[in-house]
Amino acid sequence: MEDPWQKAYDFAVAVAKKAGEVQFLTFFIGEESVANGEPCILTDEPTWIIDPVDGTTNFVHGFPFVAVCIAFAINKQLEFGVVYSCLEDKMYKARKGKGAFCNNEPIQVSDVKDIHKSIIISEHGIDRSPEKVTKILSTMQRILCIPVHGLRGSGTAATNMCLVATGAVEAFFEIGIHCWDIAAGAVIVQEAGGILLDVDGGPFDLMSGRMVSANNDVIAKRIIKEIEIFPSARDDAPIEEK
Amino acid sequence: MEDPWQKAYDFAVAVAKKAGEVQFLTFFIGEESVANGEPCILTDEPTWIIDPVDGTTNFVHGFPFVAVCIAFAINKQLEFGVVYSCLEDKMYKARKGKGAFCNNEPIQVSDVKDIHKSIIISEHGIDRSPEKVTKILSTMQRILCIPVHGLRGSGTAATNMCLVATGAVEAFFEIGIHCWDIAAGAVIVQEAGGILLDVDGGPFDLMSGRMVSANNDVIAKRIIKEIEIFPSARDDAPIEEK
Repeated sequence: MEDPWQKAYDFAVAVAKKAGEVQFLTFFIGEESVANGEPCILTDEPTWIIDPVDGTTNFVHGFPFVAVCIAFAINKQLEFGVVYSCLEDKMYKARKGKGAFCNNEPIQVSDVKDIHKSIIISEHGIDRSPEKVTKILSTMQRILCIPVHGLRGSGTAATNMCLVATGAVEAFFEIGIHCWDIAAGAVIVQEAGGILLDVDGGPFDLMSGRMVSANNDVIAKRIIKEIEIFPSARDDAPIEEK
Repeated sequence: MEDPWQKAYDFAVAVAKKAGEVQFLTFFIGEESVANGEPCILTDEPTWIIDPVDGTTNFVHGFPFVAVCIAFAINKQLEFGVVYSCLEDKMYKARKGKGAFCNNEPIQVSDVKDIHKSIIISEHGIDRSPEKVTKILSTMQRILCIPVHGLRGSGTAATNMCLVATGAVEAFFEIGIHCWDIAAGAVIVQEAGGILLDVDGGPFDLMSGRMVSANNDVIAKRIIKEIEIFPSARDDAPIEEK
């Protein structure tokens, strides 16, 4: 069978590796193009969804989680995702239907179903408005007191998703993220056996700016019970609404 | 000049490396001996202060921060500290007056004095009593809203202190820790140019169960303003008081 995207996938892996060295990329949908005022609409066209540096704050400070994220979608479906965690030198990659890998070793989500034995990972985000911070910390308190084993935060959504995919944590959730932070990780989590949902329990929507990724449905739904949802902008919203 | 502790220091480095491979140690003051009901009193005698696995929850889950901590005190003064971050394969070490190193490269704290440009690291701890969790999260909210660049948590105090020492974060604080979690890191932070204080701004007390470690006095004191202190046991308290 012909494999139409193998070349693109190999290219993404090579570019992620290179980008980890030189911090430079050109791209279509991505944080830097949107910052330049370009529209951010996912169409049926073949589309690269790229974040050259996920974890900018970590990058500036030398905190050891910084990721290059490259995903590729066609007909609005994600075909593959590559996350290169530069400082750890870990190359995560996955193609739809072909499994997920870290440095070429197959990876798999954890099989924990008991929430009390889980580690959950999330972020405080960069918005410091008191209402949002209050909601985020209130959710963290509710989850801690379920209780769970622990709550962590690496400072990058992409790395957090890869930690779900390797089984180091059971779930990652965040409100206020962007498609370029999570598109590559989304393929990796799913190919590692995990699931994606909206924070309200509905279907995952890449452009919605919010997501729960988990090892399984049981953990995801238990976490969703505790999430205090607050408004966040869609990536494909008209610029005046953002 | 004779160097009375060089052999002990070399031994500690070798043992930390070995312990990272085999997860086994004997020791004097350490989490496992105290768990066996042995007293935990720091005397003037030469004393090893050891945690064979700092970050037990991380270790169980495969979360990538697990540390072997070995410190050595005489006349109640810490002479050296070794922290081996096993999964990262980073060997941090420091001797009093001789600088701090990661994989034999000198390390130094960050020179940031503007709290708004800082990353702070702390932990939620393992106590899930609502009063403590509320105080911990309230402190986190106050610090986030100073605002700072970010708030992180690796799940191990020793690694958090090494992240202060390398300049990846500006400060780490925690209430409810133990001497074996922080003794080795204490030498490493100080030899990297950082400082240690009590969470009330007074002098650091290794056995007090609480600590602020920071790159400098300005950052430490700014963080201390926001810390909501709650009661925690001293390591050298009589067992009936714990």
